[in-house]
Amino acid sequence: MNKEFLEIAKNAKKASIKAQKLSNDIKNKALKTIAEFLEKGKSEVFEANNKDMQEAKSLLDSGEISQSIYNRLKLDENKMRDMIQGLIDISKLPDPVNKKLLERELDDGLILTKVSCPIGVLGIIFEARPDVISQISALAIKSSNAVILKGGKESINTNKAILGIINSALDTVEDFPKNMLNQVFSRDDVKEMLEADNYIDLIIPRGGNSLVQFIKSNTKIPVLGHADGICHIFVDESADLDMAKKIIIDAKTQYPSACNSVETLLISDKFTKSKELLSGLEHAGIKLVSNPESWHKEYSDKILAYKYVSSVDEAIDHINEYGSGHTESIITSNKENAEHFMDMVDSAGVYHNASTRFADGFRYGFGAEVGISTNKTHARGPVGMDGLVIYKYKLRGSGDTVIEYVNGEKHFTHKDLL
Amino acid sequence: MNKEFLEIAKNAKKASIKAQKLSNDIKNKALKTIAEFLEKGKSEVFEANNKDMQEAKSLLDSGEISQSIYNRLKLDENKMRDMIQGLIDISKLPDPVNKKLLERELDDGLILTKVSCPIGVLGIIFEARPDVISQISALAIKSSNAVILKGGKESINTNKAILGIINSALDTVEDFPKNMLNQVFSRDDVKEMLEADNYIDLIIPRGGNSLVQFIKSNTKIPVLGHADGICHIFVDESADLDMAKKIIIDAKTQYPSACNSVETLLISDKFTKSKELLSGLEHAGIKLVSNPESWHKEYSDKILAYKYVSSVDEAIDHINEYGSGHTESIITSNKENAEHFMDMVDSAGVYHNASTRFADGFRYGFGAEVGISTNKTHARGPVGMDGLVIYKYKLRGSGDTVIEYVNGEKHFTHKDLL
Repeated sequence: MNKEFLEIAKNAKKASIKAQKLSNDIKNKALKTIAEFLEKGKSEVFEANNKDMQEAKSLLDSGEISQSIYNRLKLDENKMRDMIQGLIDISKLPDPVNKKLLERELDDGLILTKVSCPIGVLGIIFEARPDVISQISALAIKSSNAVILKGGKESINTNKAILGIINSALDTVEDFPKNMLNQVFSRDDVKEMLEADNYIDLIIPRGGNSLVQFIKSNTKIPVLGHADGICHIFVDESADLDMAKKIIIDAKTQYPSACNSVETLLISDKFTKSKELLSGLEHAGIKLVSNPESWHKEYSDKILAYKYVSSVDEAIDHINEYGSGHTESIITSNKENAEHFMDMVDSAGVYHNASTRFADGFRYGFGAEVGISTNKTHARGPVGMDGLVIYKYKLRGSGDTVIEYVNGEKHFTHKDLL
Repeated sequence: MNKEFLEIAKNAKKASIKAQKLSNDIKNKALKTIAEFLEKGKSEVFEANNKDMQEAKSLLDSGEISQSIYNRLKLDENKMRDMIQGLIDISKLPDPVNKKLLERELDDGLILTKVSCPIGVLGIIFEARPDVISQISALAIKSSNAVILKGGKESINTNKAILGIINSALDTVEDFPKNMLNQVFSRDDVKEMLEADNYIDLIIPRGGNSLVQFIKSNTKIPVLGHADGICHIFVDESADLDMAKKIIIDAKTQYPSACNSVETLLISDKFTKSKELLSGLEHAGIKLVSNPESWHKEYSDKILAYKYVSSVDEAIDHINEYGSGHTESIITSNKENAEHFMDMVDSAGVYHNASTRFADGFRYGFGAEVGISTNKTHARGPVGMDGLVIYKYKLRGSGDTVIEYVNGEKHFTHKDLL
């Protein structure tokens, strides 16, 4: 590990230890102070962003970056307002740390409690969008985690300006630990992060499929996120076709590059002869394709793969085989089929008569979103701040030893007190 | 991936999909049927175990296996009774699957529920002790997970006999999916398991430190467990020394090879001149050592490292630096120091005036123990059946689309119904 990165990682770890005891008041004060400093320092951020935009313009012209990266780089008054509001919103959420999850008397005077606590050090690797910095910083502060951020090189000046302002705000907050929010810049630093399993407890990638795939394949550290979003909608034989059309158009066209957009449509073969549904979709500007290569493709565009299936079970099998475990919906008026589909499809979100686009932390009412996870451990689906905490067990006794329980002289009472 | 293993992995995955809908009744019937079959098939198991013991005897004589492996291999009437009772006990626990964790109205007629569900396919890699098979099979059945087991080669005949009986019991249980419990045997199969991240969702190693270290370093699949158990006891300046002595003797001598035994003793330097504590420990047969190499050693024997520290903060720093995040205890009559210690020590278990040996799923009242985890995500500390489940989100609507919420025509109500 290179010396400079090791120093950052060690300091972040130390900060995370101190942060375990951070009160909600100090954390909220930190968030509000950052909001004030960002409001005052806006012009400095816009200036840095202009510099990035100028450099990006020549990269765009030479074809080195895409138009969409270029667009996401731009930080305007609206985005800045959202960033600042986001900090205030997160300060209003309940403290995810120090929640009593269990309180149990093991025996007279021997009390076990399970309390939520921060995970430790988060490693965040993100592309273009510089507003991610303030969002992730806010989530980390509220959940008492330290963080090491690595943003895209295109937004390096904006990122430096934003984190600079955030850290000068934090310097003014009494009792807020130093080195909670750290930033690294080079491609080598990504390699260092992925290998720093002694210091970093969780990696959260915010970016495209190839970034996430690369990270998942190159680290022993747990990764929270999703690589693919191959969502399905199944139109069952008893579906209301008008409803189906409305939902599919929403799920495909409202924001086609979102990971919760539908990519594959499965249709009951009862409808093979009726062209009503498909022509309605084409009419809405959706390009339809149907070939086996498309079953595991994430188009992120107004392109939709479709396939006829003979039963709800064939739809379930197709989804469990080709899906990414993200979000799938059945359109049906048959309640039994709907419940069967929701039980048997092994995905983070299983819907009945609703658009896959609802898979989102804000729409679920979490107040904040860390990301969407297709993991089968820790956190699945849209992840709120709960995904940034774990728990520890506290046991308070008065000289208790196990030997008496092993010998049978004493017996556990196991009485829940909560 | 070799063809034979791929077949097993694919079939386990298929079984896990079917198992998502298994009712608690069928699972309990399966557990009780296995208990009956094991009772009837005892002699067959003992015969197989005798064969293993004979072969192990010559390995022991030639020094290829240790006395402790040889001892753990033996399956007697007592262990068999415990195995059978364990199945019955697990059948009595509440179903960990299909628990409603959240129910929320997102808007009129649009209801989100978060329900617990199985993880999928568990990979279990264990050494010697053949009773692990029936225990893990029972936990997997009750939590609706499929499992691929790889036991130590020394117990191969016993393992085959036990899983054979278990699977013939399951064959008689109506609607119980085929291929839920699978076994592989060769060292190459371990390699296959660790690479099968498309099929296996969680690896649980049951064995010594070097096995766990090897597994953690060689797979992308999440691993539930702990490599080290370097537990600490800190004797604060206000400690009752009789209590300290009693707790330390319990934590070191009651079962020295357990992972929750104490390995390092930190003592307030107020006690440097009083030899009462240390001589008391020596009197109890504990060998004391004190050198920097011992700070990260797990002796698993009646050997205890000790060090004087000047303050509770120095003790906390030592533990966070050298500990394994397992279980640590402070002995003190100063409540403030106790709470500070429990807040700042970053371990799964933080105790006040109690033996570290309480870190155990049964002692915590979980009714079953999957293992003890030092992970910072998913499950930490003694893990009950809750560690074998994750959750999915079910959303029930009536044609709902997100466009109206994005446009501001509709607004989420976010009303909790649970």
